[in-house]
Amino acid sequence: MKIITFLSDFGTKDGYAAQMKGVALSITDARLIDITHEVTPQNIREGAFILRSVAPHFPTGTVHVAVVDPDVGTERRGILITTSRHILIGPDNGLLMPAAHFLGNFIVYEISNEKYMLDSISSTFHGRDIFTPVASHITNGVPFKEIGNRIDDFVDLDFGQGEIRENAATGKVIHIDRFGNIITNITGETLSKGLAYNKNIMVFIGEKCIEIPFVKSYGFAKKREMLVTIGSSNLLEIGINQGNAAKKLSIKEDDKVEILFA
Amino acid sequence: MKIITFLSDFGTKDGYAAQMKGVALSITDARLIDITHEVTPQNIREGAFILRSVAPHFPTGTVHVAVVDPDVGTERRGILITTSRHILIGPDNGLLMPAAHFLGNFIVYEISNEKYMLDSISSTFHGRDIFTPVASHITNGVPFKEIGNRIDDFVDLDFGQGEIRENAATGKVIHIDRFGNIITNITGETLSKGLAYNKNIMVFIGEKCIEIPFVKSYGFAKKREMLVTIGSSNLLEIGINQGNAAKKLSIKEDDKVEILFA
Amino acid sequence: MKIITFLSDFGTKDGYAAQMKGVALSITDARLIDITHEVTPQNIREGAFILRSVAPHFPTGTVHVAVVDPDVGTERRGILITTSRHILIGPDNGLLMPAAHFLGNFIVYEISNEKYMLDSISSTFHGRDIFTPVASHITNGVPFKEIGNRIDDFVDLDFGQGEIRENAATGKVIHIDRFGNIITNITGETLSKGLAYNKNIMVFIGEKCIEIPFVKSYGFAKKREMLVTIGSSNLLEIGINQGNAAKKLSIKEDDKVEILFA
Repeated sequence: MKIITFLSDFGTKDGYAAQMKGVALSITDARLIDITHEVTPQNIREGAFILRSVAPHFPTGTVHVAVVDPDVGTERRGILITTSRHILIGPDNGLLMPAAHFLGNFIVYEISNEKYMLDSISSTFHGRDIFTPVASHITNGVPFKEIGNRIDDFVDLDFGQGEIRENAATGKVIHIDRFGNIITNITGETLSKGLAYNKNIMVFIGEKCIEIPFVKSYGFAKKREMLVTIGSSNLLEIGINQGNAAKKLSIKEDDKVEILFA
Repeated sequence: MKIITFLSDFGTKDGYAAQMKGVALSITDARLIDITHEVTPQNIREGAFILRSVAPHFPTGTVHVAVVDPDVGTERRGILITTSRHILIGPDNGLLMPAAHFLGNFIVYEISNEKYMLDSISSTFHGRDIFTPVASHITNGVPFKEIGNRIDDFVDLDFGQGEIRENAATGKVIHIDRFGNIITNITGETLSKGLAYNKNIMVFIGEKCIEIPFVKSYGFAKKREMLVTIGSSNLLEIGINQGNAAKKLSIKEDDKVEILFA
Repeated sequence: MKIITFLSDFGTKDGYAAQMKGVALSITDARLIDITHEVTPQNIREGAFILRSVAPHFPTGTVHVAVVDPDVGTERRGILITTSRHILIGPDNGLLMPAAHFLGNFIVYEISNEKYMLDSISSTFHGRDIFTPVASHITNGVPFKEIGNRIDDFVDLDFGQGEIRENAATGKVIHIDRFGNIITNITGETLSKGLAYNKNIMVFIGEKCIEIPFVKSYGFAKKREMLVTIGSSNLLEIGINQGNAAKKLSIKEDDKVEILFA
């Protein structure tokens, strides 16, 4: 099955995402699936986190088009990345990299062959005029090296991974979801070593120190109670059952997080 | 044609709905259609109303996955419901029941066979790890009884139906839509007996009493005029032409409604 | 490939768009693509602009269903428009006309043959009960003239086109996108004659006069800098790099715009 996914900061109101789909269906009969178009405008990091969380759940061979692209129309390059299982297409600004690191074995190509772009290229919408046509031709079997040359000087972005010491884990906030849940770069594997469900643990986050229970899921906490859990992306997260933890704690991306096991 | 629909309170920003679609497309080639992901977070009743309104319009054999699931990860069960025409899959918290009652002839199965779930089950996202894979396997022809045992002690939810007396109908508010239109459980059939278009009728709602016209549709009322009509789900609704009736009348779900015919 | 697109002001929360898709899939196996459901409620002009911007990017033969329909249920007619490449279906209130003018060679038919509507027609949701079934039957090969008679007294809507004089271009604001970019009816072709990138030009807009650079794209302006550029629909637009120009300048649709080339 041919599949193209779309991620952007376009919103859905103005129909920009639909323009990309119209272009795709003029070239390919692939399935077209939206990841999201609600990335905070020009927030490359947020888009990168969402792409890294969602892309791995798709079948092998899926082509992901991602467009959070504040420098569209300047000299920034477009890139195509092959990984162990998927293809990633978008601007060379770090947006695709956390997904590429997660999927593994990646190779980066600069998109340069105009044969696979639209005839007329706008200066403001390469998602429609370059990335979507390239993705569509790829689903039709065009070889990667036809798209452009391999490069090594791409813009990298890596969320890193939390560190574990004897009695503690240290990391940082990498995403805040729409419920206000605070997602860190400390993985579930790491933590499950030292922690037991339903016991309180110490959490240092931002400039606050709180003692809250480690639970299997939100439903095990009382209403409005703060908690630590391993979320659906296998990352440690801090939330409030039926509440907004990020707002309550005034937390933002990149804030430090430390957890004491005892 | 194989079809799976999705309803949730996930929003579209974080890509959770897309994770479910990636999982589905790894198992089935069914069409994937969003009903909505904008249910108010954890509002089971609202999700139940929308599912009941939308599901019946799909072709026979459609599988509906619905996830408004505040107790995910606790002991609450997952269920599959067969009805006269459709299959419903989601948590056992009432969410699926108004649609099941409306579609009729329903049988409820507990989802227990791990063979049809993902290998690794998170504690916070059964929509992706259990409900979607089960739905996908069902579209591929897996028999219902393979999924788990039939149960009768499911959590029920029923919006009831308005009562009709000689000169009046009594019911309650069951939904407020995004335009602020107030939808009741009084059906169109009931009302059309005693009412004529473009005549004023008395409406008691919340703690207010208003005299407003019964019209064929919003376009027959003046701009900013309040009105009663039979909406697209064949339910009596109270609205304001180009305005927000629920806000103006301070109405919420479950508020009583009474209509005098004369 | 059979394709139906959907544009409306329904929002996505209440599942109205999904009701249309359920009806479509009961009749046709066409691909179903959302253009948007986030048109400002009852804003025919805004819906018309988005449809005109998006529709042309779809393959020949695509059927576009558009529903911004404040007068649904009254005597306003439903229409089907054939153009050089696409089919447009919706209410006779101007919504379809800018797209029809842009696509060219259009013929308008009144939708009157009940054979291609649902058996039961609500007074409030012709998108589901009339326009979608007609579109679905059209993708199955029903001839246009089967739908109803040709008419010439449809409601027209035309955004016009900016005028060019020796040293200036004059037009008006026809759309404000979600980023607050101000889109005018002055085309890119017109302007490229007299302008050079990265030079300041005088812009009279609303009641303000500003001197701002004409740039190839947003990325060529400094952060928070106001600019003029040719947008992705080949129309002149005024924006702020990473900011909201419409809010800053207090601009609304139909405000006059004049640009001095020197």
